[in-house]
Amino acid sequence: MATQRILDFLATRRPTGPCLVVDLDVVRDNFRAFEKALPDSRIYYAVKANPAPEILRLLAAMGSSFDTASVAEVEMAMDAGAPADRISFGNTIKKERDIARAYQLGIRLFAVDCVEEVEKIARVAPGARVFCRVLTDGEGAEWPLSRKFGCVPAMAVDVLRHAKGLGLDAYGVSFHVGSQQTDLTAWDRALADAKVVFATLAEEGIVLKMVNMGGGFPTRYLRDVPAAQAYGQAIFSALRKHFGNAIPETIIEPGRGMVGNAGVIKSEVVLISKKAANDNVRWVFLDIGKFGGLAETMDEAIRYPIVTAHDGTETAPCVLAGPTCDSADVMYEKTPYLLPLSLTIGDEVLIEGTGAYTTTYSAVAFNGFEPLRSYVI
Amino acid sequence: MATQRILDFLATRRPTGPCLVVDLDVVRDNFRAFEKALPDSRIYYAVKANPAPEILRLLAAMGSSFDTASVAEVEMAMDAGAPADRISFGNTIKKERDIARAYQLGIRLFAVDCVEEVEKIARVAPGARVFCRVLTDGEGAEWPLSRKFGCVPAMAVDVLRHAKGLGLDAYGVSFHVGSQQTDLTAWDRALADAKVVFATLAEEGIVLKMVNMGGGFPTRYLRDVPAAQAYGQAIFSALRKHFGNAIPETIIEPGRGMVGNAGVIKSEVVLISKKAANDNVRWVFLDIGKFGGLAETMDEAIRYPIVTAHDGTETAPCVLAGPTCDSADVMYEKTPYLLPLSLTIGDEVLIEGTGAYTTTYSAVAFNGFEPLRSYVI
Repeated sequence: MATQRILDFLATRRPTGPCLVVDLDVVRDNFRAFEKALPDSRIYYAVKANPAPEILRLLAAMGSSFDTASVAEVEMAMDAGAPADRISFGNTIKKERDIARAYQLGIRLFAVDCVEEVEKIARVAPGARVFCRVLTDGEGAEWPLSRKFGCVPAMAVDVLRHAKGLGLDAYGVSFHVGSQQTDLTAWDRALADAKVVFATLAEEGIVLKMVNMGGGFPTRYLRDVPAAQAYGQAIFSALRKHFGNAIPETIIEPGRGMVGNAGVIKSEVVLISKKAANDNVRWVFLDIGKFGGLAETMDEAIRYPIVTAHDGTETAPCVLAGPTCDSADVMYEKTPYLLPLSLTIGDEVLIEGTGAYTTTYSAVAFNGFEPLRSYVI
Repeated sequence: MATQRILDFLATRRPTGPCLVVDLDVVRDNFRAFEKALPDSRIYYAVKANPAPEILRLLAAMGSSFDTASVAEVEMAMDAGAPADRISFGNTIKKERDIARAYQLGIRLFAVDCVEEVEKIARVAPGARVFCRVLTDGEGAEWPLSRKFGCVPAMAVDVLRHAKGLGLDAYGVSFHVGSQQTDLTAWDRALADAKVVFATLAEEGIVLKMVNMGGGFPTRYLRDVPAAQAYGQAIFSALRKHFGNAIPETIIEPGRGMVGNAGVIKSEVVLISKKAANDNVRWVFLDIGKFGGLAETMDEAIRYPIVTAHDGTETAPCVLAGPTCDSADVMYEKTPYLLPLSLTIGDEVLIEGTGAYTTTYSAVAFNGFEPLRSYVI
């Protein structure tokens, strides 16, 4: 997944220290693949996945809309050229003053999952469109979803009815099937729930217009994942099945699926050692770890492919850890990682599929290490 | 644990957004308590716990030494007024060029746990003192220790012998009983291992001089912990038991124990909601979470006391979560947290015992939220 452009950049620029390199050509290809796979859906790029200005500018120019998590992300999207009507404030947890600020900036589309949030919006963003997030089970997702976002469908009906009563535009329903979702039927189950909310409110004369199908589109790490085309077909079939000839406006919010495979982290082997003379598992320590950008290795959830100059030679299992004085800074231990036996201290390695959820997760200064540097080319 | 000075600061300055306030008077008291509890040990403050310049300057002026994890931390300690001979490069995982840089800066004390690291030091820091870290079981610690640091005692013998052979000063042994360690016998078990290394090498004519007893000294979160005095007595008894009349030079490296109880995070309740009308557990969302500085709530390891203006009134369990669009940003869910039923959106809360391992763990910009601000008073 390290493109020739990325390899050339690293070979020419020789940046010191760990860094992420993102190839915009891959982002462009991913955007087009989503457009092609779901031609009737509007694409709201999940800014939180990677808010690098170059990525936001490219996507804004290609016509993308943006899913934002904070006022700062709203401003980043606008700075990149996105008009306010292409920006959704998709965080269900917002301070009232942040809602007010976003409204002042022209944002008219907000996520909610409870009446308390609806009331904040009604107070400071009169007439805005709101969509209510419905809980899904997250089954089949590699990065687990807790029950943090959304409410049960029956409560979503109450929430949207309340919004309507307060003069807001009860606009639709959203769900998220779980990040790095590889089970195509997950969207079918969630769309069935969305349809229940649509139908119940329709009986009261409240006509919802939009289904926000969230993100979850996976990027390829170690295992093959279905292509965007396969997702598109599964989602379209589910929409047809549940909504028949009255398919609503739809939105998707890819983040990882848009930028994950566009980025590669260059790292250096700092140490290879054992804990006892007769240990058969080596410890390999890199100059990046859980606190330097690879937070998604938490509970060994995301397993990144690692490329070395010795690939193809004999491998053996090792524990992979980061460079900090924190004992929790271990990436893969329960399931050891296979790396070449000839790997040596000082070698550079490439950690692939790291374009999403790395730079911004990076700790600001843990152990005195600077945050992950990023180059977008 | 919020001192009057902290409360006055918050009342007067009214900082917006989540922030940490650290009271230097508490740090001063903690330093004196360690000095009194272990009068024969040198105190190396673990800079990674909180590297705020004001804290480092205070401790440098009080005569503290410093345990550092990177060249950046070495430089911070020196900038704060610590001479090089009061600084230890305590990370066992170091790039050779970082060792060289530290040596240029005058650092002569380095941690190792394998022959590979000894060889780096021998190449670029000739004649330096090295101490070898021995693995401990971490039993009794709240923040778990993995096997990441240290080697078995038998290997430590080999490592220090190798150091001596390469012209380094085989200076001593270190261990770490696990952070927030509340079992006083943990030091006894580790000192028994240290003594084995001392004795084995002494038979070969290699005389070690120092035992680095690491950190692990707890700060008070929700449960009472033994006072520094109790630790001092337990440690002195163990030293006497294992080393008799030949007690070596000793070092301790408190981090959490030095600054944990000196800091309080002020946060705001962003949302309180339920997932279904008949749920009996509320979700309480704060404007700080796992990625904003409370990383040590990972696996619900550290349970911080939370003070509200409604304390003393009826409480009920709630799930406590952070403000980001990340489903992993939930602090306490498996064991719900008791908070007053009258807690309201917009209320301020104080999260106590947050002086250590918060500001630097904070993500640099996750979801567009800025890193945790800090005021040292």
